[in-house]
Amino acid sequence: MNTVTIGMCQIRQGYDCAQNLERSLALVDEACAGGARVAVLPEMFFTPYEPPAIKRAASLSTEALDRVRERAARHGVLIVAGSMPWEAPGGKLYNRSWVIGPNGEVVHHHDKLHLFDCTPPGGPPVIESETIEPGDSLGTFETPWGTAAVVVCYDIRFPQLTQVLIEKGVRLIFVPAAFSVITGPAHWEMLVRVRALELQGFVAGVQPARSPSLRYAPHGHSLLASPWGEIILDAGEGETAAVASIDLDRAQAIRDRFPLIEHRRLDLYQTCWKAKP
Amino acid sequence: MNTVTIGMCQIRQGYDCAQNLERSLALVDEACAGGARVAVLPEMFFTPYEPPAIKRAASLSTEALDRVRERAARHGVLIVAGSMPWEAPGGKLYNRSWVIGPNGEVVHHHDKLHLFDCTPPGGPPVIESETIEPGDSLGTFETPWGTAAVVVCYDIRFPQLTQVLIEKGVRLIFVPAAFSVITGPAHWEMLVRVRALELQGFVAGVQPARSPSLRYAPHGHSLLASPWGEIILDAGEGETAAVASIDLDRAQAIRDRFPLIEHRRLDLYQTCWKAKP
Repeated sequence: MNTVTIGMCQIRQGYDCAQNLERSLALVDEACAGGARVAVLPEMFFTPYEPPAIKRAASLSTEALDRVRERAARHGVLIVAGSMPWEAPGGKLYNRSWVIGPNGEVVHHHDKLHLFDCTPPGGPPVIESETIEPGDSLGTFETPWGTAAVVVCYDIRFPQLTQVLIEKGVRLIFVPAAFSVITGPAHWEMLVRVRALELQGFVAGVQPARSPSLRYAPHGHSLLASPWGEIILDAGEGETAAVASIDLDRAQAIRDRFPLIEHRRLDLYQTCWKAKP
Repeated sequence: MNTVTIGMCQIRQGYDCAQNLERSLALVDEACAGGARVAVLPEMFFTPYEPPAIKRAASLSTEALDRVRERAARHGVLIVAGSMPWEAPGGKLYNRSWVIGPNGEVVHHHDKLHLFDCTPPGGPPVIESETIEPGDSLGTFETPWGTAAVVVCYDIRFPQLTQVLIEKGVRLIFVPAAFSVITGPAHWEMLVRVRALELQGFVAGVQPARSPSLRYAPHGHSLLASPWGEIILDAGEGETAAVASIDLDRAQAIRDRFPLIEHRRLDLYQTCWKAKP
């Protein structure tokens, strides 16, 4: 057994970013009180996923990172700090997830790679690239329970990332996200489950709670999926710090019985990460 | 509009292969009477998915191919002849899908690439490689409605194939399959839906009907999924020739509004099919 308790901090956001930050930290406290050794926040956790709000929220990001580091050290836990706007060269912002270790140290960051410039059927157009600068790398970090990685929201739609992360030994992927009430019911659960199945590992997808007062309305339903593609935890629609325990050894047990990763025909095809020029 | 009616020939199999073949052809007739311009059969359509039965069924394959060709010409339709055991060099059999055109001509074949050597949780072990020789290529074929491809059953679990097929212009993937009552409820629907979503095209997954008398019990539930990952048709559990119409132009409409394929970061990663030595 190699178990860890994950806390999914599903904040209900409003337009007051400072208040969103306080609520997020309170949910981290609540998750830790519930036994979480890893607390996960959603994409853009202290701001609604709306370009003007994201731009304004950027001034709070340095403070937010400091506060999250203090909280991680206070509880001695890992915090996957969802994502926040972070200054990028050229005037735009990265959609950046910081991962903080139990001494308050920064252990990793991931900048969202794929930008959501889409008009979902029935939904309003979103042009993320007007505000956000995409990242260009995909890393991993070590935890006491195994190698982990973060991808942000729209990134989960691209199966190549999972294939690259398998080669890096990843058994646990965190997905801070903000799927809407349009894309959420249509795709969120099956994407989380299928990525866990392909990874033969665990996927923790963390969303903001439903919040009808926001123009961009999040779907809620933070999900934790197993290496067999089962839903271990569905946090529902409301604000909550939902916790669930997973046994990382189960990834190996599934890989032994149902060796999907080994069965890939790497003699015929391969997903390669290109070397930087 | 660029519509075509697909017939999903969900045969209930027994251990009499000649009878299974007759039933399969009768379901093709029924689908065509219902307006189908493409009739699709499941994996190993005239034999239960059990190694001894598959080996015995191989002696029927030449006749089965001839009968399917005659049926395609009679109705003037395309038939995706699920799969059948087909003699391979070295004494094993390919798990081969033949695609037959409306003049009875062979237009394509696909040999299953990934062999199911697995012990699903709660299920019996299956060692497909004891009987089957894997294929080593992935082709496409032209239809009046767009470029199409076939992958067989376990192949659908490997997202690399969809990525390779996107580059070949495919908008429609046929998946003759035989997911069991263990793997079917666990994974079948979400795999069909997510592959359609990743392809931004249509996926037609055709299964045998439930048949409690078989040792390897198929799940049924042939499914047709849209470029938005919706289920257009679920054939249920019993024997049926279910038909549904799809509009291939909808693939382009989704690709325009929600350009997932275009958003792939091919500057950072790529799934490549390796040239043969």
